Amino acid sequence: MTKKLLSSISHPRDFRSFNQTQLQQLVDELRAEIIEVVAEREGHLGASLGVVELTVALHAIFDTPNDHLIWDVGHQAYGHKMLTGRWAAFDSLRQWEGLSGFPSRGESPFDAFGTGHSSTSISAALGMALAAKHNGEERQHIAVIGDASIASGMAFEALNHLGTTQANVLIVLNDNAMGIDPSVGALKDSFAKNTSEQNSLFESLKIPYTGPIDGHDLAGLCAVFNEQKKKKGLRLVHLRTIKGKGLASAEENQIVFHAPGKFDPQTGKLTKQPKAGKTKFQTVVGKTLSALFDDHDHLMAISPAMPTGSGLVELMEKYPKRCLDVGIAEQHAVTLAAGMATQGLLPFCVIYSTFLQRAYDQVIHDVVLQKLPVVFCIDRAGLVGHDGATHHGVFDLVFLQTLPELSILAPRDEIQLRQQLYTLTTSPPKGPVAIRYPRGSGELSNWEVPFAPIDYIKGTCLREGEHTAVISVGTMAVEVTQALNQLDQSIAHYDLGCVKPLDEKLLHAICSQFSYLISVEEGSLIGGVGSTLLSWANNNGYHIKMKQIGIADHFVSHGAPAVLKQQLGLDAAGIAQSITTFLREEACN
Amino acid sequence: MTKKLLSSISHPRDFRSFNQTQLQQLVDELRAEIIEVVAEREGHLGASLGVVELTVALHAIFDTPNDHLIWDVGHQAYGHKMLTGRWAAFDSLRQWEGLSGFPSRGESPFDAFGTGHSSTSISAALGMALAAKHNGEERQHIAVIGDASIASGMAFEALNHLGTTQANVLIVLNDNAMGIDPSVGALKDSFAKNTSEQNSLFESLKIPYTGPIDGHDLAGLCAVFNEQKKKKGLRLVHLRTIKGKGLASAEENQIVFHAPGKFDPQTGKLTKQPKAGKTKFQTVVGKTLSALFDDHDHLMAISPAMPTGSGLVELMEKYPKRCLDVGIAEQHAVTLAAGMATQGLLPFCVIYSTFLQRAYDQVIHDVVLQKLPVVFCIDRAGLVGHDGATHHGVFDLVFLQTLPELSILAPRDEIQLRQQLYTLTTSPPKGPVAIRYPRGSGELSNWEVPFAPIDYIKGTCLREGEHTAVISVGTMAVEVTQALNQLDQSIAHYDLGCVKPLDEKLLHAICSQFSYLISVEEGSLIGGVGSTLLSWANNNGYHIKMKQIGIADHFVSHGAPAVLKQQLGLDAAGIAQSITTFLREEACN
Repeated sequence: MTKKLLSSISHPRDFRSFNQTQLQQLVDELRAEIIEVVAEREGHLGASLGVVELTVALHAIFDTPNDHLIWDVGHQAYGHKMLTGRWAAFDSLRQWEGLSGFPSRGESPFDAFGTGHSSTSISAALGMALAAKHNGEERQHIAVIGDASIASGMAFEALNHLGTTQANVLIVLNDNAMGIDPSVGALKDSFAKNTSEQNSLFESLKIPYTGPIDGHDLAGLCAVFNEQKKKKGLRLVHLRTIKGKGLASAEENQIVFHAPGKFDPQTGKLTKQPKAGKTKFQTVVGKTLSALFDDHDHLMAISPAMPTGSGLVELMEKYPKRCLDVGIAEQHAVTLAAGMATQGLLPFCVIYSTFLQRAYDQVIHDVVLQKLPVVFCIDRAGLVGHDGATHHGVFDLVFLQTLPELSILAPRDEIQLRQQLYTLTTSPPKGPVAIRYPRGSGELSNWEVPFAPIDYIKGTCLREGEHTAVISVGTMAVEVTQALNQLDQSIAHYDLGCVKPLDEKLLHAICSQFSYLISVEEGSLIGGVGSTLLSWANNNGYHIKMKQIGIADHFVSHGAPAVLKQQLGLDAAGIAQSITTFLREEACN
Repeated sequence: MTKKLLSSISHPRDFRSFNQTQLQQLVDELRAEIIEVVAEREGHLGASLGVVELTVALHAIFDTPNDHLIWDVGHQAYGHKMLTGRWAAFDSLRQWEGLSGFPSRGESPFDAFGTGHSSTSISAALGMALAAKHNGEERQHIAVIGDASIASGMAFEALNHLGTTQANVLIVLNDNAMGIDPSVGALKDSFAKNTSEQNSLFESLKIPYTGPIDGHDLAGLCAVFNEQKKKKGLRLVHLRTIKGKGLASAEENQIVFHAPGKFDPQTGKLTKQPKAGKTKFQTVVGKTLSALFDDHDHLMAISPAMPTGSGLVELMEKYPKRCLDVGIAEQHAVTLAAGMATQGLLPFCVIYSTFLQRAYDQVIHDVVLQKLPVVFCIDRAGLVGHDGATHHGVFDLVFLQTLPELSILAPRDEIQLRQQLYTLTTSPPKGPVAIRYPRGSGELSNWEVPFAPIDYIKGTCLREGEHTAVISVGTMAVEVTQALNQLDQSIAHYDLGCVKPLDEKLLHAICSQFSYLISVEEGSLIGGVGSTLLSWANNNGYHIKMKQIGIADHFVSHGAPAVLKQQLGLDAAGIAQSITTFLREEACN
């Protein structure tokens, strides 16, 4: 499809004078472009396809960027980016130094607020609207939020505050009955059943409601927004849209086509093959839990809206009453697990590292302080790649390490992960445990070994050496192994396996034997494992010389995982280089 | 008043056969006892007085502890404690090794879930109810939650999930239109206007509703709970109560009598005098902001339901549109501030340290990652005393230090706090800043000095010395000064003032001059400032011997602040002892 209109647009003002026929053509071109680019570059497809008409209508009617438009979560903003001067650069989407996959204030004045995590848009819009009132500025503030995101607690807090203000905020509720997985919760049904110009939730919160409206009727949308443009104050427009709209396979299989990887733009057929023989850590967790659930009736699993991403779909189908999707509700997920744990169940709370930040207080206050046996499966720990800074799980080792009585496991490979989960099930922990593992696949092809209990607190010597020892955390063992293979030196390598409690017997042996210590972790250096090891050595009277390798004090951008690791010096070559430099410098001292 | 009935009760079964007259007498005795004990021992008064009838009715009708009763927040559970075997011990309330001021699983089987922070009860009750269903156990699960707490996002997440289950959960909505401060938000009005046997919020969430009911009508309550006892599944009973019920001054002045300190149990007159000449850090912040707001129109302040505790009442009265109470909504508070900051305003987000844990992701994702100038005033940083483990702010230095581009200030006294706030206002920060200060008063009597800008990143030498230097964080400078005065040694003392970024010039000077370094902080040692200083020294080639003084790897219980500091070795004597021991051991090496 030629992009006659789209290619001519560098600012929404370029199409604000279009008639409806032209706008509809722009919609069609935009939709085709999204399909073509995402088919090749990968990314979030379904959400952006569902809001093409909405995107064109909003920018056609409202005076962006003077009017502030905030896309909740932001993975649906591809069309928005193409229409706001970033069409030519779109090929760089989610690549290193390319466009972000989410709105980003640094990227464009049209991105009024950076997003990535859900349910922030109403709070941000209200903050802007109160500022406008204070500053005497006239403009509209529009928050576009999905039905899965508005059901999250944070959005409710914002709505409850909003309802007491006269702030100028227009909420566009984009109701497609889907998050990444299908929306859950009582509220979903309230939206689905809504047929009249009122809704009991918004009524209770004193927020004027309009809807439901067909979100794919471009002319209808333009008419509604033309009306809304004349208004001020708080109000909500409820749209019904179809996630994946315009690509048959994406409409039919909305979960897969949320972020489908490479596919054929004509047929919608997925073209990307999984790595031969490799298994995602998520699959390892899902399959292992599935086997353990068969034999142990006291196990439960909880996912806050991420069963597919977390590898739990099979488990959920097999045990629908024991594997629960609670929606985008991390806080609730954690305390729900705490409640179950008080009754003798062993809940596995499976949450992405950065989403666990949403439930930090619940981890502390409800689980750890009460010493309740809850197992946190911390997915996406470490660098996630293309999703970028909002999604890199680089803080969890810090914010969890400081909590008393929480055990923190960091398996170095699929088999260790599997056996740790098995051991936790057969020798139930007396208190809370966190297991962190990265996004994507490991290196082993045969990880489905027979279950066997392990002493998971004990570290492992992976390689003998002299004078110098490397201690790696979790799957960084792979890069360190490669790095040491590249170096022509006798350097020892230990894998911690368990970050807390520390294997002190092993550490005494290491600190007694070696003069130089190098820690390697896929996480923040400040407050990280390396800093804890150095303090341990100091407190135990070892005056060892140490190099801490990890993520320095800055946010990490988006890009392919391999590129990011290279940029950060966390690939084998970078680690080898750091070790060489450190030892050379120490030799000179 | 004699406590004829109350003194005979060691378990609720002791009054389950009482007639209404006897139950009413028990109510009266219980209310009198709460007033008498709290008048002398201090604690949370108003909330417990408001639920005396409710407490007696619940325990009289339901089969506690087999039926699980969860008190949200838990500061209203004094009557519950007295009726469940803890009357004789009640005099030890909130004292070191005494009864906790909140429900605690370790303290009694009647305390089904430990609380302290708000809005956790529905999630916990649902977890227990799902476990009961799974385990085939018959019992009731009752969550008692106030109108301020149910408006918080976490409670909404639980309600949204609850509405899709058939779980056996009874929610008792204790609506007194108050948190600590008056409830805010649109929902409050929805409850206030409720006159019929339906409510639009709960309708939208598919939760059967009963109410509103007079929560001080004992016979009425018993009748309602007798009905509810026969039912299963989810349902909500809406009570109207009066916070402080039964003590005239507490009913009239509900904010003060939330936790009034010592008072005359007959007259309700406050008897505790503020420390002569001392000012709370909260007052310093409130008064300083008030003066700064007069001159700088771009300043805003946000409090999540704690304007009184945070010292913001005067500011709020003076600038009602610029000092906002958003309710128990920490997540919203932080992202609202982020939205304001995008528009050139400088918001001061005033949040207790442990409540900021509720908004950790928003701090990272919405403020810090976007480098937005928001000032977090972190109140109750460090030990809080009688409120205990749920409220001690001992993790913030860790979970904030690891965040890139966040500046963290820790003023050592009232004047430094005042001048830091002034400097942030007159030389606006380019990115986010946190200022942490403790609960209670400092030592200075004349802190209202003329405003003067300071270079807040620079540390200060408080005392010269040889060989050994102490680096203290924040108000620990006071204890360290006293400790060094007790020691007959030439030890230097530096105050950081700013924890991040570090004053590297000063640190180079210190590490060059001294062989022994001692860090002192009122926070967790793992990941704390001491560990960061040790890593800094190591990374900069200084092989210094260090002692880190702070809070070891355990939760700190409740008790008087002075007792806690003594127990932890964080008072002057304990610090002096630690220094002496460290230097003696090092001298032997």
